[in-house]
Amino acid sequence: MIGSDDGIPSSRRLDELRAPQLDRLIGPDSILVQPLGAVEQHGPHLPFNTDLLIAERVAAEAVIRAASDCDVWLLPPLAYTKSNEHAWSSGTIWLSADTLLRVLDDIGRCVAMTPARRLVFMNGHGGNSALVGVANRELRLHHGLMTFLAHPGVPPDQGGVSAADEHGMGIHGGTDETSIMLHLAPELVDMSVATRNIPEQLVSNRHVRFGGTVGFGWLSNDFGPDGHIGDPTTATAERGEELFEAAVTAFVEALGEIAEFELPRR
Amino acid sequence: MIGSDDGIPSSRRLDELRAPQLDRLIGPDSILVQPLGAVEQHGPHLPFNTDLLIAERVAAEAVIRAASDCDVWLLPPLAYTKSNEHAWSSGTIWLSADTLLRVLDDIGRCVAMTPARRLVFMNGHGGNSALVGVANRELRLHHGLMTFLAHPGVPPDQGGVSAADEHGMGIHGGTDETSIMLHLAPELVDMSVATRNIPEQLVSNRHVRFGGTVGFGWLSNDFGPDGHIGDPTTATAERGEELFEAAVTAFVEALGEIAEFELPRR
Amino acid sequence: MIGSDDGIPSSRRLDELRAPQLDRLIGPDSILVQPLGAVEQHGPHLPFNTDLLIAERVAAEAVIRAASDCDVWLLPPLAYTKSNEHAWSSGTIWLSADTLLRVLDDIGRCVAMTPARRLVFMNGHGGNSALVGVANRELRLHHGLMTFLAHPGVPPDQGGVSAADEHGMGIHGGTDETSIMLHLAPELVDMSVATRNIPEQLVSNRHVRFGGTVGFGWLSNDFGPDGHIGDPTTATAERGEELFEAAVTAFVEALGEIAEFELPRR
Amino acid sequence: MIGSDDGIPSSRRLDELRAPQLDRLIGPDSILVQPLGAVEQHGPHLPFNTDLLIAERVAAEAVIRAASDCDVWLLPPLAYTKSNEHAWSSGTIWLSADTLLRVLDDIGRCVAMTPARRLVFMNGHGGNSALVGVANRELRLHHGLMTFLAHPGVPPDQGGVSAADEHGMGIHGGTDETSIMLHLAPELVDMSVATRNIPEQLVSNRHVRFGGTVGFGWLSNDFGPDGHIGDPTTATAERGEELFEAAVTAFVEALGEIAEFELPRR
Amino acid sequence: MIGSDDGIPSSRRLDELRAPQLDRLIGPDSILVQPLGAVEQHGPHLPFNTDLLIAERVAAEAVIRAASDCDVWLLPPLAYTKSNEHAWSSGTIWLSADTLLRVLDDIGRCVAMTPARRLVFMNGHGGNSALVGVANRELRLHHGLMTFLAHPGVPPDQGGVSAADEHGMGIHGGTDETSIMLHLAPELVDMSVATRNIPEQLVSNRHVRFGGTVGFGWLSNDFGPDGHIGDPTTATAERGEELFEAAVTAFVEALGEIAEFELPRR
Amino acid sequence: MIGSDDGIPSSRRLDELRAPQLDRLIGPDSILVQPLGAVEQHGPHLPFNTDLLIAERVAAEAVIRAASDCDVWLLPPLAYTKSNEHAWSSGTIWLSADTLLRVLDDIGRCVAMTPARRLVFMNGHGGNSALVGVANRELRLHHGLMTFLAHPGVPPDQGGVSAADEHGMGIHGGTDETSIMLHLAPELVDMSVATRNIPEQLVSNRHVRFGGTVGFGWLSNDFGPDGHIGDPTTATAERGEELFEAAVTAFVEALGEIAEFELPRR
Repeated sequence: MIGSDDGIPSSRRLDELRAPQLDRLIGPDSILVQPLGAVEQHGPHLPFNTDLLIAERVAAEAVIRAASDCDVWLLPPLAYTKSNEHAWSSGTIWLSADTLLRVLDDIGRCVAMTPARRLVFMNGHGGNSALVGVANRELRLHHGLMTFLAHPGVPPDQGGVSAADEHGMGIHGGTDETSIMLHLAPELVDMSVATRNIPEQLVSNRHVRFGGTVGFGWLSNDFGPDGHIGDPTTATAERGEELFEAAVTAFVEALGEIAEFELPRR
Repeated sequence: MIGSDDGIPSSRRLDELRAPQLDRLIGPDSILVQPLGAVEQHGPHLPFNTDLLIAERVAAEAVIRAASDCDVWLLPPLAYTKSNEHAWSSGTIWLSADTLLRVLDDIGRCVAMTPARRLVFMNGHGGNSALVGVANRELRLHHGLMTFLAHPGVPPDQGGVSAADEHGMGIHGGTDETSIMLHLAPELVDMSVATRNIPEQLVSNRHVRFGGTVGFGWLSNDFGPDGHIGDPTTATAERGEELFEAAVTAFVEALGEIAEFELPRR
Repeated sequence: MIGSDDGIPSSRRLDELRAPQLDRLIGPDSILVQPLGAVEQHGPHLPFNTDLLIAERVAAEAVIRAASDCDVWLLPPLAYTKSNEHAWSSGTIWLSADTLLRVLDDIGRCVAMTPARRLVFMNGHGGNSALVGVANRELRLHHGLMTFLAHPGVPPDQGGVSAADEHGMGIHGGTDETSIMLHLAPELVDMSVATRNIPEQLVSNRHVRFGGTVGFGWLSNDFGPDGHIGDPTTATAERGEELFEAAVTAFVEALGEIAEFELPRR
Repeated sequence: MIGSDDGIPSSRRLDELRAPQLDRLIGPDSILVQPLGAVEQHGPHLPFNTDLLIAERVAAEAVIRAASDCDVWLLPPLAYTKSNEHAWSSGTIWLSADTLLRVLDDIGRCVAMTPARRLVFMNGHGGNSALVGVANRELRLHHGLMTFLAHPGVPPDQGGVSAADEHGMGIHGGTDETSIMLHLAPELVDMSVATRNIPEQLVSNRHVRFGGTVGFGWLSNDFGPDGHIGDPTTATAERGEELFEAAVTAFVEALGEIAEFELPRR
Repeated sequence: MIGSDDGIPSSRRLDELRAPQLDRLIGPDSILVQPLGAVEQHGPHLPFNTDLLIAERVAAEAVIRAASDCDVWLLPPLAYTKSNEHAWSSGTIWLSADTLLRVLDDIGRCVAMTPARRLVFMNGHGGNSALVGVANRELRLHHGLMTFLAHPGVPPDQGGVSAADEHGMGIHGGTDETSIMLHLAPELVDMSVATRNIPEQLVSNRHVRFGGTVGFGWLSNDFGPDGHIGDPTTATAERGEELFEAAVTAFVEALGEIAEFELPRR
Repeated sequence: MIGSDDGIPSSRRLDELRAPQLDRLIGPDSILVQPLGAVEQHGPHLPFNTDLLIAERVAAEAVIRAASDCDVWLLPPLAYTKSNEHAWSSGTIWLSADTLLRVLDDIGRCVAMTPARRLVFMNGHGGNSALVGVANRELRLHHGLMTFLAHPGVPPDQGGVSAADEHGMGIHGGTDETSIMLHLAPELVDMSVATRNIPEQLVSNRHVRFGGTVGFGWLSNDFGPDGHIGDPTTATAERGEELFEAAVTAFVEALGEIAEFELPRR
């Protein structure tokens, strides 16, 4: 039990505040960071909580580092999001597009009840990106918030890069994601069953490929029964540490830009 | 990094499994426990995450204890649930009834994709109870699951008891909840601003009162601006430890009954 | 044809008023009573309209008796409500949870267009209770109404009692409900096919049973093909008359408390 | 209390049956009649339940008369339907278009659980006709039912006639409706405040008028504050008796045609 | 490239305007015409776009003719509408009732953002009429618009006439519709496979028939596999030209009445 | 009027077929192209139908060119889509995210009723891209279709390029879009009011900018009252012709890849 000195929790978890603290600490310059994870199959070698754990850890670390420069707060993560590309797999727990849009709108409605105006999604699951893109405009229009979407790393099917020999297709359980997990939670990774799984037939396409000019609707079992797409066999904890540090650093930088970003209030 | 020995995580968190593990470990006798928290104002003395923290801790502890006797697994908690009785308060983050019904149905749909048939909600927020009661029947009818609703302690407005001098009205931030928080997370409690807040005008009612024969729709600011309803001033960490232990023990017992419970499969 | 003397209908049915009468008679102290019935199978011995008939008759009688003391009006009953526990049975006509929530919200919206502020549901069907509990908060929040939920008798699975040898499981077509029907509409009851149907396996449970600390989602055919749960064989018209009178008396008392109940207007 | 002789209730109310009776009596040739009323302002001279009462009485009488020739059953009426043209008026209780579509679909789903294939709406409120027209096709497509829509009299804005000097505009509380109420429930009618209210400006239109080739969206207060549209001053109980008898006779005839009507089962 | 002289496009297509033009040209007297087509099977002899093409051409021609007298503008047509009576047929592309209601509400919301107050649907598909009737009231109530529903010709099942020997059943691909297509787009018509398809069994019905006093829910394959209902064999381009001219003339007249029509603003 | 020779329309518009033609011509290798336009303000210099016209023209031209190599068909365009970033502007007509998701799902449901398995959206409006990305996965999962999303040119905020001095911000009515309109419909363009409108403050951002690693929710009036974002002053018809030809060529190439693309059928 503490006294009434209102010490700020070192976690900067907004939900660890008491109401009078929140009224005092959250203001128009406050930035709220909402991690978005996923509970979805990640091939034989990675756990279901891969995206959740990465988003949580990047967000938590970056918020603490950024807090010395800007007024940033962490929200509890959404564990379940839109993983319908894995609907075929036992153990994946996902919200429909419709449900998740409603969840995000509800969150936006509540954030707009505070004085804070900036809401940032740190999204660990590439399958959410398009939907959060839709939601971010809705939240701006409906609730007047400034809304942002960041990733631990830009997904390769959205303009990001992946390991060279993955041909830009390390999009789910590949080299990079596996490396980060080897860094963050090696006890949850089983490299003995890690295999390369790349839809080579897409390599020669100029338009219709991951990250190409023509997008396509895919499910993770469209590319075989393993469930991952990429090459985890080349993953290492060292690479993971670098990627994690880069992700945190980039997000801290982005939070700085977000703090300066300005749009008219609605 | 581990080998392929498939060690079960000591947390018994289902989402820490990998897909091949889950396929091997989750079967028709498995019980899945879904904690339901809340991020909502709890008066001046308790943090927003009170219900979340209590539900998580009771569920996590009980699952570990029960695991020696039954095949029970923990899901990641829902932090945001139906807290619309606190819609007036800055910092409360809540899902609408409609949204939460959809979230619960989505979870049920996914659980029904596994071989598990028993889904238990450990609900830390009394404001969810009626809605989860509705959802549990929906999940049984739509997805064929056996569904259960447990609480850390039965809420006083739902047939439970509260401290004697609270007149059965320690329903939000009162003696018991505050005591448990003093036990679990004293650093988040500020007893210096704890005050008694009991709607005494309801005491003389025979029918229309919390837990009476006639229910009524209320918002937490219907009873004054403080936001809590109950008397936290008499709370102690000792009482909290007893209540917490009792909650865990009761839930372990209940999980035993749930493991034996049987209904026809649909 | 009457003149312009605006005699109040003895039924106190609000829908028998003409618009100028309603404008004159309905004010901020008016209480509107909405009976909720059901059209659902009630075992072999009771008719589908059992809950509808009981709710209508208790509400109608209590409104007339209470009218000497308070400004109370009767709405036409909802015959179809949420009977999805009987979805398996031919002849049950039920609204989904979603539909009924919308119906109740529509009713609340309209009541809020009148000067009346108090809306009371007299609910004859236990399967509605949780959902109406959800709705009552919605109506308070969305439309500023004071909302109440009463029953002819508290259902045994919600803290009420049932006949001793029913082990608290006379929840659908049991001793009490059958007795009331023998009192109100004996021509619709067929005692020659009344049988005892009690899920005895639940008796020894401490937590997981009807009215226990752990709720569960059930369908009426989870307990055999008969459709009722309880023991109608001990029902008598005399017991029914006592129960009916007690229900009316209790509801008249409750209406008195409701008339005095006060919450801030929204 | 009756014995097990399964006497059919003289009301032919389906909801007065017990489950074993219904299983025996309802078959593929059974016709179910669902009255649709309304609780809506009807000008100063008629009660809110005008449409409900007329639909109920026509349906009840016709079902009893037709029962000697065909296998027809009465359902309990829907009191609340789509009266949004009167949304401005205190005391009107209405379901949104969306809600009523869901209610009708729920009813259709349940009727399709019985062996009956023919569902007839006897609709007392012209404001429902278009929506029931939409619903009838939905119920045919979704549930395989044969669906029908009948009225006590075809509304003048839907091709029916009204009293000559109403210029086809006796559409709400006019000569005919008032006459029927003077026949059925004179104690609820107040002729002392009945006034003529006809939007004369529409008379000269060739296309855009009630029942013209161009429909238009209107609200009842678009034509003045009184709330009715038509001329009730010429109403008489004698005319009402004739109209009521004609409505019952026509509906009995229509039920005969419906009994013979055949479409492929879906 | 034009200069800034803001020439009005001869098509009077609203969407061919630039924003400053629209701000200058659209005012409170402006009438917006929204054609509603359909893409649905029309029997073996007519193309899927029959209703779309007719609605577009009637609307486009009438708007241009009426523009000399009133301030009328054309919107781009909705090609896909509610064709669920043809759900069985490959190539029919239709919106559900729910979807189309939302589309129409969205359009109404946007029209209400302009100064225009009059929105007219020129509906080529009889299967939309009831739903647009519902929507027109919604748009009046929600958005304060004056809303209208016109047809190229009143459908025979809605009070219109059809060729004498069709017995009022030329409702889909019959004499008149085929004739208009022979006039407007003969290259899309294949008269060599045109056949008479009339449900003769309905002729003797007094109540239950197309355009009778009792409506019924039907699908186009309820009357055989051909998909049309009517007699196209007697169609001629000459008749089609007359019908088209009559439709345009009538719509021009109706637009004149619409321009004079007045209701209170909401 | 043609005979029964089933000549394929040169437009390759699927809706110009008759049912027997469609049954003969559409098979498992058929590709259906659905243009997505928009009716939205495009600054002072471009018409509301800019995106509609470009999508239609690119799609129509490419389908005709590609038809010699693959079995490709054109659907009628959706004129109204998700333009909520322009919700503030009079004359923009847009569907909500929810409505458009339903429209796309309805289209997918109907395409899945044909033998065709490949559905391609040619999307002229960048504001739709995220939502169509969501929908494409839904259509794959719900209806088993292979779904694709192409653009006339990849929008600069989605990884595409824009004119050098637009700093990657020619995203709405900028150099390229204006150039294409000068090529396709110069009579609808008013260069006399074209002005440069670039949010220069975003240029220095590393993460938070159009096409940057951190997306943000914006409305078109967040960057001033003009409504466009980009620099139309440097647009020319010649550039427009090149861009149009490139867009058609690229889409023809993409259609070739789509014809070869294969995923397992669901």
